[in-house]
Amino acid sequence: MKNITGLRCVSCGKVYGPTELDYTCPDCGTRKGTLEVVYDYESAGKEFKEDVGEGTVTDIKRYSSLLPIENLGSLPPLKIGGTPLYGFHELTDDLDRIWIKDDSGNPTASYKDRATALAVAAAREKDIGTITCASTGNAASSLAGLAAASGMETVIFVPAAAPEAKIAQLLVYGANVFAVEGSYDQAYDLCLEAAEKYNWYNRSAAIHPYLVEGKKTGALEMADQLDWNLPDKVFVSVGDGSIVSGLCKGFKELVEIDLIDEAPRVIGVQAEGADTIARAFDRYDGGEVEIADRSASTIADSISVGKPRDIVKAVKYTYENGGRFLTVSDEEISSALVELARKRGIFAEPAAAASYAGLKKALNRGDLGDSEEVGVFITGSGLKDVSAAKKGVKGPTKVSPELSEVESAMEEGTRNAARDNS
Amino acid sequence: MKNITGLRCVSCGKVYGPTELDYTCPDCGTRKGTLEVVYDYESAGKEFKEDVGEGTVTDIKRYSSLLPIENLGSLPPLKIGGTPLYGFHELTDDLDRIWIKDDSGNPTASYKDRATALAVAAAREKDIGTITCASTGNAASSLAGLAAASGMETVIFVPAAAPEAKIAQLLVYGANVFAVEGSYDQAYDLCLEAAEKYNWYNRSAAIHPYLVEGKKTGALEMADQLDWNLPDKVFVSVGDGSIVSGLCKGFKELVEIDLIDEAPRVIGVQAEGADTIARAFDRYDGGEVEIADRSASTIADSISVGKPRDIVKAVKYTYENGGRFLTVSDEEISSALVELARKRGIFAEPAAAASYAGLKKALNRGDLGDSEEVGVFITGSGLKDVSAAKKGVKGPTKVSPELSEVESAMEEGTRNAARDNS
Repeated sequence: MKNITGLRCVSCGKVYGPTELDYTCPDCGTRKGTLEVVYDYESAGKEFKEDVGEGTVTDIKRYSSLLPIENLGSLPPLKIGGTPLYGFHELTDDLDRIWIKDDSGNPTASYKDRATALAVAAAREKDIGTITCASTGNAASSLAGLAAASGMETVIFVPAAAPEAKIAQLLVYGANVFAVEGSYDQAYDLCLEAAEKYNWYNRSAAIHPYLVEGKKTGALEMADQLDWNLPDKVFVSVGDGSIVSGLCKGFKELVEIDLIDEAPRVIGVQAEGADTIARAFDRYDGGEVEIADRSASTIADSISVGKPRDIVKAVKYTYENGGRFLTVSDEEISSALVELARKRGIFAEPAAAASYAGLKKALNRGDLGDSEEVGVFITGSGLKDVSAAKKGVKGPTKVSPELSEVESAMEEGTRNAARDNS
Repeated sequence: MKNITGLRCVSCGKVYGPTELDYTCPDCGTRKGTLEVVYDYESAGKEFKEDVGEGTVTDIKRYSSLLPIENLGSLPPLKIGGTPLYGFHELTDDLDRIWIKDDSGNPTASYKDRATALAVAAAREKDIGTITCASTGNAASSLAGLAAASGMETVIFVPAAAPEAKIAQLLVYGANVFAVEGSYDQAYDLCLEAAEKYNWYNRSAAIHPYLVEGKKTGALEMADQLDWNLPDKVFVSVGDGSIVSGLCKGFKELVEIDLIDEAPRVIGVQAEGADTIARAFDRYDGGEVEIADRSASTIADSISVGKPRDIVKAVKYTYENGGRFLTVSDEEISSALVELARKRGIFAEPAAAASYAGLKKALNRGDLGDSEEVGVFITGSGLKDVSAAKKGVKGPTKVSPELSEVESAMEEGTRNAARDNS
């Protein structure tokens, strides 16, 4: 915390004191006025280099000099981050090297734990015992799980139509769940109101500047694991826009403290049916971000967002990074999901597979140079949505418990394979 | 591999050469004749101590001097093991300290990956391209995932009645799945026959001595993470009996190589409705293990085993360890699952929560000494079976998107809480 010099509004640029505000810029409002945490990069950088100089990556605590946290003991007592980075050298004939950062092994099986950890720590440092959010997905289960581990209460607002299984997980973690008869946006606004009334800490998407700080740890960790030799481009799926913002900020800060020369280009991948940020980015010319919300429809439920809450940061940061956005169809997402599982043994949820689908699309379009190295973030486990995964595959072969039936099926399979090859 | 001196039949004691047999003792047959890997503990111990002398735990490769593996490059290219060990110091008023080893963050979200990794490596070292097993659960998804990552084919035999979601995961990983119209036992036997006919490597439960070697890595890792100061007792859930056998063997070998003075007592926990091994243990007097298979019924599907395949090892090893078995009801499992999620933020599948239920039972019965430290293994993620988790919890609170409705519900909640406290 000592390295933080202020909180800057991402729209009007006004800088507030490090502890002056909790959420957003009062002049610009809840969505345009998201704040960013500014550090004294000289002192933070010195400390950061000392901390990463020894040992190996185990979790996000390693990067505390560049995080808004006073006391490491305020973090949830679970292992957040320290997820594996896999190098695959033969993903396609066209790519020298690909790195996959698999965040599905986090405590609640998604990248969101990185952000939640910081929100939980902040609430504990302020001695607030209840934390809230509006979400149906990974942010909610992350909050419910990490808050439970920290002995905190949670109140979670979900649209009443949310899948039963997702709500079930929240209830198991002991969250107080309000099923709101209305849209996600109505649940979001109700959560805001209730948080204010009851002085609950609010972890809803994009509302709190510390969330993006947690999300940048994936960038720091990837760089650390590669000994500060990052790939040329990094692909990540985009819903509300917080993870892509976090990655851009993380890489930028590593340049700032001289650990890398140049940030990798960050490529944000959206579903064709939920492409509000990609469209805003295409219209963007460096001035004010034009927001035109749309309806959302995609199998990738974790990025099925029509009114993205971190759109201003996502567009501005990606523009500054030199990155870009692209969109993929549900079919491309399904087939990427299956390929990731079959070629790499990584079972991703559809939203997470979207980043890999984006890489494949970029590759097919010839967007990638011959010698370029590429990174891909897998942001959530396929176990979160097995029914979606099923859509891309054929059923099992039914047999009686007789070897002869297995033999027939094998011959049939061989014949089919031979036919395929002819 | 160089440290292996032979394979010993766990029933007749006959010792075979290190590469003389692949599966079981021909004299004692597939179930009684499970083999155990014997090492030259002097040379293995020396190497082991050098390897663990530096760095931190990252994955099972760290323990290769005590593993049947020639070339570390044969292991699947994913991070197996290196899972977090959490110390909770206030679990109950009666316990000084509890350690929870959470294996749900493995690549396919269960402890089984430790065993599968060794089977995949062995198959690759023998240049066998297809690997098979009979299973509906974690062993099958583990095999499908890790084999896919290694570029191998898998053939998996499941009873046709297996839950669709579990089969779906196998299909996504690209496994060839045979849905056998019959019981698990029929699928198991069919798998044996087919493996023999087609020269597929067989990873079915207990058939291959290397599986228990992979499973012992959890014991080695827990000891390593605690700097060789292990708790007094360790609780683990028991289905086929391979994990409990692996833990006993791992701890014993650490005594053998002088890294610890005494093995912790291993407490195997079975569901009341699937207690074949616990019953056999209670009858056991050090001679031959008496096998009396029973039908199985429990919500903890991963340990719902009536005809446990590794019963001989499990009973003999636990007896020698000085450990014991106990059983828990489905209600106790459900309530342990909820407590683990709510107090620790760990979302376990029912079979994994059974170990924690066993700890609670032992505690309530006064089986644990006042100063005893305890370890608990969590062997699989709750995301594997969300519907089972749901059974232990109440539904959400429905509201319209109006703050007044939240207020009423909060007041109601407060009144109820007050009533609970009165």
